[in-house]
Amino acid sequence: MDRLALIQSLAIPNTSKILLLVLDGLGGLPITEGGPTELEAARTPNLDALAARGVCGLSLPIAQGITPGSGPGHMALFGYDPLAYEIGRGVLEALGIGFDLHAEDVAARGNFCSLDPQTGVITDRRAGRIPTAVCERLVQKLRAIRLPGVEVFVEPVEDYRFALVLRGAGLTDGLTETDPQRTGVPPLPVEPTRPEAAPTAGLFNTWLAAAFQLLADERPANGCTLRGIARNPGLPPMPQVYGLRCGAIATYPMYRGIAKLAGMDVLPTGHTIADEVETLRHHWPEYDFFFFHVKKTDSAGEDGDFERKAHVIEELDQLLPAILALNPDVVLVTGDHSTPALWKAHSWHELPVLLWSRYCRPDGVTRFGERDCLAGGLGHIHHLDLLPLALANAGRLAKFGA
Amino acid sequence: MDRLALIQSLAIPNTSKILLLVLDGLGGLPITEGGPTELEAARTPNLDALAARGVCGLSLPIAQGITPGSGPGHMALFGYDPLAYEIGRGVLEALGIGFDLHAEDVAARGNFCSLDPQTGVITDRRAGRIPTAVCERLVQKLRAIRLPGVEVFVEPVEDYRFALVLRGAGLTDGLTETDPQRTGVPPLPVEPTRPEAAPTAGLFNTWLAAAFQLLADERPANGCTLRGIARNPGLPPMPQVYGLRCGAIATYPMYRGIAKLAGMDVLPTGHTIADEVETLRHHWPEYDFFFFHVKKTDSAGEDGDFERKAHVIEELDQLLPAILALNPDVVLVTGDHSTPALWKAHSWHELPVLLWSRYCRPDGVTRFGERDCLAGGLGHIHHLDLLPLALANAGRLAKFGA
Repeated sequence: MDRLALIQSLAIPNTSKILLLVLDGLGGLPITEGGPTELEAARTPNLDALAARGVCGLSLPIAQGITPGSGPGHMALFGYDPLAYEIGRGVLEALGIGFDLHAEDVAARGNFCSLDPQTGVITDRRAGRIPTAVCERLVQKLRAIRLPGVEVFVEPVEDYRFALVLRGAGLTDGLTETDPQRTGVPPLPVEPTRPEAAPTAGLFNTWLAAAFQLLADERPANGCTLRGIARNPGLPPMPQVYGLRCGAIATYPMYRGIAKLAGMDVLPTGHTIADEVETLRHHWPEYDFFFFHVKKTDSAGEDGDFERKAHVIEELDQLLPAILALNPDVVLVTGDHSTPALWKAHSWHELPVLLWSRYCRPDGVTRFGERDCLAGGLGHIHHLDLLPLALANAGRLAKFGA
Repeated sequence: MDRLALIQSLAIPNTSKILLLVLDGLGGLPITEGGPTELEAARTPNLDALAARGVCGLSLPIAQGITPGSGPGHMALFGYDPLAYEIGRGVLEALGIGFDLHAEDVAARGNFCSLDPQTGVITDRRAGRIPTAVCERLVQKLRAIRLPGVEVFVEPVEDYRFALVLRGAGLTDGLTETDPQRTGVPPLPVEPTRPEAAPTAGLFNTWLAAAFQLLADERPANGCTLRGIARNPGLPPMPQVYGLRCGAIATYPMYRGIAKLAGMDVLPTGHTIADEVETLRHHWPEYDFFFFHVKKTDSAGEDGDFERKAHVIEELDQLLPAILALNPDVVLVTGDHSTPALWKAHSWHELPVLLWSRYCRPDGVTRFGERDCLAGGLGHIHHLDLLPLALANAGRLAKFGA
C-alpha cells in the first residue's frame, strides 16, 4: 500500500495544533577539526530546554549520500516521497512569486545573462546580477512576445531571475534546459526528451528567438536562458491527505511556492523571524498545521559564514518562548537539509531533529545539537517519517488494523 | 527511480581519491563470554586515531539474519544490490583466474573429488585437497574433451578447484549443481531449472560423462563435480556508473574476479599486505577509487583462530600510516561480512565501519571496535549506502533536485 494512502486512510480530525519549524540548512559541521558545529556553538537555552522535555534524533532527508535541493528536502518533510514526486525549478519559481499555476501549465525559470554581441557566447550567466528593477523593466519588454495558440506569462522574480509560463492545450514537459552552466559557449536550444514534447520545445525556441531580438541592445542583460522547464507535479494536497488546515509562513519565494504546491495557504508575512512569529500569532486560530520557515540559516551556510549561521539559530531560539506561548500540541524542529558553513552548500548529512508533545517519550538528551541528538530516542530517522510521527503525537492517526 | 540510476545521474567528476579498505570477514564475536571481539582485542592505534577523526557505525551487508557469500558482500560494498544482481560461483572462479569471460559464456566451478570405483559414490568432495600441480595435469587431460557447436575451456584454479567455461550461441543459465554437498552419494546430473536450459544441461552432462572416463584411473581425483553454473550478470561498470577510474588490489583470485566483474582494473600485486600497499603507492596517480582487499582476516576467522585474526588486523593497522601518507580524500574501512572465529564461518552480524574525510561529521568514537561503533554517527547503516556516502564526501555527487 502506498504510504501516503495509508496515512490518509488513518487520518482523523481533532482540534490539536502542529508546528513544523524548519531552519533551512540547519545541519552543520565543525569549521575547525575537533570544534563544534554551528548549532552546537550557538547559545540555545530555549531549544535545549525543549530538547530536554522532548525526543531527539538525526534525520536523513532522502538517502545516504544524497544532497537534497530545497524542493526534495521540503517534500520529504511534508510527507511526499521526493523520489516519487519530482518538482521542476520552473514550477517552484512560478509558485514562489504567487503565480496562479494551472495543472496543465508549463513553467520555466528564466535567467537574464550577458552575451558577447559578436559571437553570441555567454560572458556572464547572471548578467552582473542586475537589480530587480531592471529585471522588471526587461520582463515588461518580453511581455510583447506572442505565441500561436498559447497564452504567455512573463513575471519578474528577483535580481536576474524571472519566470516564463506557457498555458494552452497540448503542452507537455520533457524539455531540456538552455543554460549550458558555463560561460564561453552560446545558450543551448530547448530540446524535447521525448517525441511528444517537440511542439512545446518549438514554442519555447520561438519565444527565445524573439526575446533575443528584443534584448539585443540591452547591456548587460542582452540574453536569457531557461532552466527547469516543468509542469505542476500535482501533489495530493496536504489538507486532503492529512485532514489538516495548513498555513505556511515563509519569507522567500521558493518556499512559499513549495508550500502552495503542497496545498497550504501561504500567509502574508514580513522579512524577519520576529515578523514571522507575529504572523503565526495572528493566524494561530485559523489552522491546525503551520509550516514555519527560517531561511537565513541556509544563506549563512552557503556563504560559509559559521558565526552568522549560529547567530540566526540564536535569533530563533530567543523567539521560541513567544512561539511556545501559543500552546502548540506538537512541535517539530529540524531543517530541510544540512548546509555546513565548511561546505558552503547544501550537503548530504543528517540533521538534528526535535519532537515535543505531551505524548512523546523523552530521552536523555538535554542539548539540541548534532552529537547530542545521536543519543536521542528517535535514533536515525527519515524525513518522510516525521510528519506521520507528528500526526500520531497530535492524536490525529487512528489505529491500523483491528 | 532505480538507485544506481539515481547515483549515476548525480555523479560528477573531480580529482578526489577514495580508498575502500576491506578487511574480509572483519566483524567478530567474543570468543569467551564477556571478552573482546577480534577487532577489540587487536592493538590498533592507527585505526583508533582515524576513528577519532572520522565517523563510525555498524553496517549490515544484506539484511538482518542474512549471511553473505563473498560475492554478495562485495557487490553491496560496490553499490550493487546483491538481491538484484546475482553472481554465480562459476563466474567468480573464472574471472578470479583472469579468464576473459564473454557476456554469453556459461561458467562453472569444478571440484575434483574422489569416487568409490565400485559404487560411484563420493568418498571425498575435495579429493584429499590435491596439490595445484596435480590439478594442472588433470585439467590438461580434460582439455581433450570436445562438445558439438561450442568451445570448451578448462582452467586450473588452486588445489582441487578448476573452472569450466562453455562458449557458443544459444547457451543459457538456469542449471543445477552436481555436488550433492555430502559424501556417500554419487554426483548429481546437471538439471535445467527452466525448459530453455535443457540443451545446455545436456552439453554439461556430456562433458561430465567424458570427464569421468578420462579420470577413471586417477587416484585420488577420479571424479569431479560442477558448482555455481552461471553467466556473467552484466553489472553496469563502476567507471560508467560513478565516473571513477577504479583500481583493485587483492591477492586472492575470487576478489580479483569480483572486482573485474564490477569494471575495475585489477592490478598485479604480491602476496602480503605490505606488497598490496606498495601496489597502491605505485598506482596511486592512475585511479580515483581503490578497492584494497585484505584476505587473511577471513581465513583466520574461518579457521577459528581468534589470535591470528586479531594479528592480521594489527598488521594492517601498522601499515595504515603508509596508506594515509598517500593523502586519500575519503577513506572507508570495513569488511564484506563478519567471520567470527567463534563461528568459524561467514556470519550475519553487522560490521564496524569507519569513514573519514575532511567533510565527515565526527562523533565521539575514539576506538575502532564493534561496541564503540554502536555510538557512532553513521548509526546502523547498510553496505549499499557506503559507496554513495563516500562519493558525497568526495564531492562527487551533485545536488538532487532544485
